[in-house]
Amino acid sequence: MSRPTDTIAALATPVGTSAIAVVRVSGPDCASLAQGLFGPVPLPPRVARHTDYRNLQGAVLDDVLATFYQAPRSYTGEDSLEIALHGNPFIAQSILNDLLARGIRLAEAGEFTQRAFLCGKMDLSQAEAVMDLIHARSERALAAANQQLRGSLGRHLSELTEGLLLVLARIEAYIDFPDEDLPAEDRRIVVKELDTVLHGTARLLATHHYGELLRDGIKTVIIGEPNAGKSSLLNRLIGRDRALVSPEPGTTRDFIEERIILGPHCLRLIDTAGLNPSPAALEKLGMDKTLERAAEADLFLWVLDATRPIPALPDSVSSRLTPANTLVLLNKADLLAESTPLPFTALPSLSISALTGDGITSLGDHITRLADAFRFDQGDEIIAINARHADALRRATECLNTARDKVANSGPTELLASDLRGALDAFGEIAGKIDNERMLDHLFKTFCIGK
Amino acid sequence: MSRPTDTIAALATPVGTSAIAVVRVSGPDCASLAQGLFGPVPLPPRVARHTDYRNLQGAVLDDVLATFYQAPRSYTGEDSLEIALHGNPFIAQSILNDLLARGIRLAEAGEFTQRAFLCGKMDLSQAEAVMDLIHARSERALAAANQQLRGSLGRHLSELTEGLLLVLARIEAYIDFPDEDLPAEDRRIVVKELDTVLHGTARLLATHHYGELLRDGIKTVIIGEPNAGKSSLLNRLIGRDRALVSPEPGTTRDFIEERIILGPHCLRLIDTAGLNPSPAALEKLGMDKTLERAAEADLFLWVLDATRPIPALPDSVSSRLTPANTLVLLNKADLLAESTPLPFTALPSLSISALTGDGITSLGDHITRLADAFRFDQGDEIIAINARHADALRRATECLNTARDKVANSGPTELLASDLRGALDAFGEIAGKIDNERMLDHLFKTFCIGK
Repeated sequence: MSRPTDTIAALATPVGTSAIAVVRVSGPDCASLAQGLFGPVPLPPRVARHTDYRNLQGAVLDDVLATFYQAPRSYTGEDSLEIALHGNPFIAQSILNDLLARGIRLAEAGEFTQRAFLCGKMDLSQAEAVMDLIHARSERALAAANQQLRGSLGRHLSELTEGLLLVLARIEAYIDFPDEDLPAEDRRIVVKELDTVLHGTARLLATHHYGELLRDGIKTVIIGEPNAGKSSLLNRLIGRDRALVSPEPGTTRDFIEERIILGPHCLRLIDTAGLNPSPAALEKLGMDKTLERAAEADLFLWVLDATRPIPALPDSVSSRLTPANTLVLLNKADLLAESTPLPFTALPSLSISALTGDGITSLGDHITRLADAFRFDQGDEIIAINARHADALRRATECLNTARDKVANSGPTELLASDLRGALDAFGEIAGKIDNERMLDHLFKTFCIGK
Repeated sequence: MSRPTDTIAALATPVGTSAIAVVRVSGPDCASLAQGLFGPVPLPPRVARHTDYRNLQGAVLDDVLATFYQAPRSYTGEDSLEIALHGNPFIAQSILNDLLARGIRLAEAGEFTQRAFLCGKMDLSQAEAVMDLIHARSERALAAANQQLRGSLGRHLSELTEGLLLVLARIEAYIDFPDEDLPAEDRRIVVKELDTVLHGTARLLATHHYGELLRDGIKTVIIGEPNAGKSSLLNRLIGRDRALVSPEPGTTRDFIEERIILGPHCLRLIDTAGLNPSPAALEKLGMDKTLERAAEADLFLWVLDATRPIPALPDSVSSRLTPANTLVLLNKADLLAESTPLPFTALPSLSISALTGDGITSLGDHITRLADAFRFDQGDEIIAINARHADALRRATECLNTARDKVANSGPTELLASDLRGALDAFGEIAGKIDNERMLDHLFKTFCIGK
């Protein structure tokens, strides 16, 4: 895709009545536009000027703060103009109408960031990080997006790419001499080098699960027998009476989902119908839904009634419970005369009272520790790739494994090169170094207008 | 009210996912805050710096554009800081939380503009114009607010105040000599001068009606007998099928109100139940509502069915119809073989077809002309005072009239002065020169947060 020659504009703030709204303009016409709008004295770059906005007919639409950004020192890398106006949708629309009359066109969704990418201001993974930033709903998601915006993923990919280029260079030296074959020792070196790249790729791929958890929220399913206090726990965790609670077993029929921020994470907390060994017909329908939710859960909160014996769980659920994804919660601890020993040794467990709130802080800490353990890397750096990255990395892995097999089994050198180039292309796709117009268009369309 | 000593912050853009959000900070701590946030090199005033926003714990929350405004060259007149961040409510909240942790407090509604007033950046009528600007929904309302923001009302008030101060000076010269009375010729001059001030005050007061129309929209009530085509006209004017339309007379029961922009004005278009000389019980209820709406209408669109004789209107309605506020619309003109002469000479009338759209453009032009005629002054300047101004001007008029009577009837000079000071105070209230803390607090509370 070549650099754009037209100039685009959009409202960059949400539509609504407020103190300030911002209209953003980008493209080669910005400098002359600024002169036409704000007088012959050019706006010095990056300096906010307080001035009237007059339309083509000379009518004052607003008094605004106008800031000119000179290419390449702007968000898009093009000449840009930011106009901060009073937060009135009617004024914003009037200004946009006037900009249209001056030959500027309305920007499509994501077009400013697309231009930043096309002008080389950011690679594609950074452009995606902009969108992650805008949608981040938790501290950890924000940190991951901020690091990706600053090129963390790009740096990892560069390392992998460089490692691969080294192998490719080594191999291509032999391709020009088809009669000579790669000596056994060189083959061993190449296998070792490929293993390093494969290992690095696998490490990046392993961050995909955490990436999904950060982007979508951690699906935390509350399970347990009827009347164990699952809905009370949901209400306690979200801090209000969302789910109906009654002494009658089976009060919850449809599952209920609420997002909460717990420490640095965002949880999708899902309250389900109780699991009853011998359900009535309607109850059975609710239980089926529970099993569906359990099948896709990231975390389980298994609520037990401390005053009753421990119930059996359906196999499809119990087989999914591990110490890494389950907390057993001994609820109604307040009803017991003395403290009961926690029931499991294999699964971490905790006494709580959804009614009084006892143990809830401690529960929050436990959940945070479990969620943190989904991070592949526990250092300061948070890499959390998305589905598009994972897809490319899987394709790269496939190519690398094929290449590795060929080298290990003394296959012909010239076929190797095409596998390695396949892996390089896959790495390149992530940063957007491979030209794929359709993919790019599709990707930026998911952005918001004005970004 | 004295100048504030604390520093305030607020989100200045609407809450929502978008490209950009702006957090605004104002107060004496802004310079040190900027250094604490963005490093020891001070931000040069008005220059946007692209930088990380790190919270007190050192975590990057976003990459932002930060602009420092040095007092008094800022909106508030204080040192100010504007932080443009990614349009994510979670980031905005995280940044506000961090600002709170740094000792800044959240701004109350209108507090930035209140500070601009307290720092002498604008008078009270200009501060009110900021709010009018934010809420303006039509070209004319925008123009009026922009002119008031630039001090047009303040200039008129200064003229009146100066005229009055002249009279007061003339009179006070005599107060020191209680034995001497104002000579008859001087009395005549004072009466003439007071008349000038009274005339100017009346001219300002006369703009109140148009001011109400600009702020609230022009209440345009569609009346007529059942099945004349009132709802079809409403739908035609708003450009979609809002009101149920059927061949059955009396389809509309509850009145329907929709705002439309027509030329430079905003209309509150009100469709009503048809006026039937002999209504059924339920129909009677709808008609009562019609009469209520008619009683407060600014404009009437009286829809006639061109294929039927002209019906009589209830007295309470017909007595309100004047050439200045009524358009008679001969609807269903498309059903007639040849063009009918328009039925009225006293009221302006027009052939239309709500069904085909014939005559609707011409109707729009007519309505715009009627609405424009509500403007007291037809020049370039649009003065359109609000209820608070009108109240003060009425009190000023009362004082001025009392004073005038006293002068004309040779009353004692010293009593005059207090009347004149009453009028001066009333003028002063409009610009906010009179200290009235409660009124000020109340006024700014109606603003939005961040403004």
